Amino acid sequence: MSTIGKAMSKFRLAVIQLQVGSVKADNLNRARRFIDEAAGQGSKVVLLPECFNSPYGSGFFPAYAERIPGESTKLLAQAAKDNKVYLVGGSIPEEEAGKLYNSCVVFGPDGQLLVKHRKIHLFDIDIPGKIRFQESETLSPAFCKVGVGICYDMRFAELAQLYSRKGCQLLLYPGAFNMTTGPAHWELLQRGRALDNQVYVATASPARDESASYVAWGHSTVVNPWGEVISKAGAEEAVIYADIDLQYLADVREQIPITAQRRHDVYAVTSAQGEAR
Amino acid sequence: MSTIGKAMSKFRLAVIQLQVGSVKADNLNRARRFIDEAAGQGSKVVLLPECFNSPYGSGFFPAYAERIPGESTKLLAQAAKDNKVYLVGGSIPEEEAGKLYNSCVVFGPDGQLLVKHRKIHLFDIDIPGKIRFQESETLSPAFCKVGVGICYDMRFAELAQLYSRKGCQLLLYPGAFNMTTGPAHWELLQRGRALDNQVYVATASPARDESASYVAWGHSTVVNPWGEVISKAGAEEAVIYADIDLQYLADVREQIPITAQRRHDVYAVTSAQGEAR
Repeated sequence: MSTIGKAMSKFRLAVIQLQVGSVKADNLNRARRFIDEAAGQGSKVVLLPECFNSPYGSGFFPAYAERIPGESTKLLAQAAKDNKVYLVGGSIPEEEAGKLYNSCVVFGPDGQLLVKHRKIHLFDIDIPGKIRFQESETLSPAFCKVGVGICYDMRFAELAQLYSRKGCQLLLYPGAFNMTTGPAHWELLQRGRALDNQVYVATASPARDESASYVAWGHSTVVNPWGEVISKAGAEEAVIYADIDLQYLADVREQIPITAQRRHDVYAVTSAQGEAR
Repeated sequence: MSTIGKAMSKFRLAVIQLQVGSVKADNLNRARRFIDEAAGQGSKVVLLPECFNSPYGSGFFPAYAERIPGESTKLLAQAAKDNKVYLVGGSIPEEEAGKLYNSCVVFGPDGQLLVKHRKIHLFDIDIPGKIRFQESETLSPAFCKVGVGICYDMRFAELAQLYSRKGCQLLLYPGAFNMTTGPAHWELLQRGRALDNQVYVATASPARDESASYVAWGHSTVVNPWGEVISKAGAEEAVIYADIDLQYLADVREQIPITAQRRHDVYAVTSAQGEAR
């Protein structure tokens, strides 16, 4: 966790809904091009989708997995540095000591690795390592404090509660919901997390590819602390933008003061590291 | 908390969206008539709205407040007994020792008081007593375990989490959202609570009265554990019904196993009484 300078009250977020194919180099090149484009539009934080360098599915992960640092994350570090943006690298299959993880890395505007988050809740990967919630999985750039989860992590309200109790104002979930859970729950979960915690929430999905073995729902979205969708992609490849306004967030918290009115004498949400009211 | 006999997997819930006026006797008589009607339709659990015997607003509460037991709750007890239903009595302004509470009482099919829940999160009543979460604020009729909150309580995810960790399968929120928060958040909160905890959620609002000083949103709703609205009233006075299916609830928990996959090594939701994973 690092705090750099003073808070700005507004900044631009870009979400890249990448079309992910089976050729890793193409995925990386396309990601790089969109990162440059997003930075050119004034974005300070850029978010890539879950599994942006590999088709989604445990059958693909062993072949596409990398060490960190490795080919994909070195490219991300360079892209962050060249564009002077915070780059939240969606996720990639990571290999370490013979185990696979679904991991999100975040780079700062100087190209330094700030955070590595391994997906905590594993739905379809059957090699779960012992994972511990790390406070360092939040990051604090100049503008606001950010929490990162991956896809299925979003279904667990507790993770978002821990992040928001630790001061996060923006939660980022690279994810790849499918054609069943996507229409049913993708937007509802984001709006719920945003409203319950009075934070901004953004998701980045791969673009939909009907010919893939796993068909992603798409519809990358940004939701404001009032629970409203303020930016949303369709199914196809796209970059969407949202201006994150921390003064608006503060206004919402004043209008509906749940953040101040939680009954700590009645309940608490705690992390393995201790209380995180 | 009491468990009576064995679980049935299906039962009918009725939600009464009462038109609440300024004459208490009229409110009570109308409530009684709808309870009889709901029971006649085969309902086993009947839910009344927040503040069903009084116009909503702290200016009204002192004049309408009662002791418990009192006129309103005696009528509820009798209605429950005559109809052999579990009656969740929305809420009434309660007076005790010079303090006012917004209180929900629940009666069993024998007319016995099972639960009294005082609203925990007070948005607009400025006489909060020291309130402690009571495990007895859940009830366990033959069919399922039920948790009760009142209106603003619904905005606090933790209360629903505690109830569901204690085994509740149905959460009931008598409530009176207004014309701002109603369209923005009433349905979203219910769908979020239902999906996050994989439980049924039902709300009962007073019917809308444009001439009242506080205009309620109406739209009493029942949501299933998949997050879908399965029954919903308009703005006017109405009784709505929903068949609660505990096998369906079990199926949802199997399809998306978040209930089994929570990472207790990472986080926990606890009550003042101790752990309530």
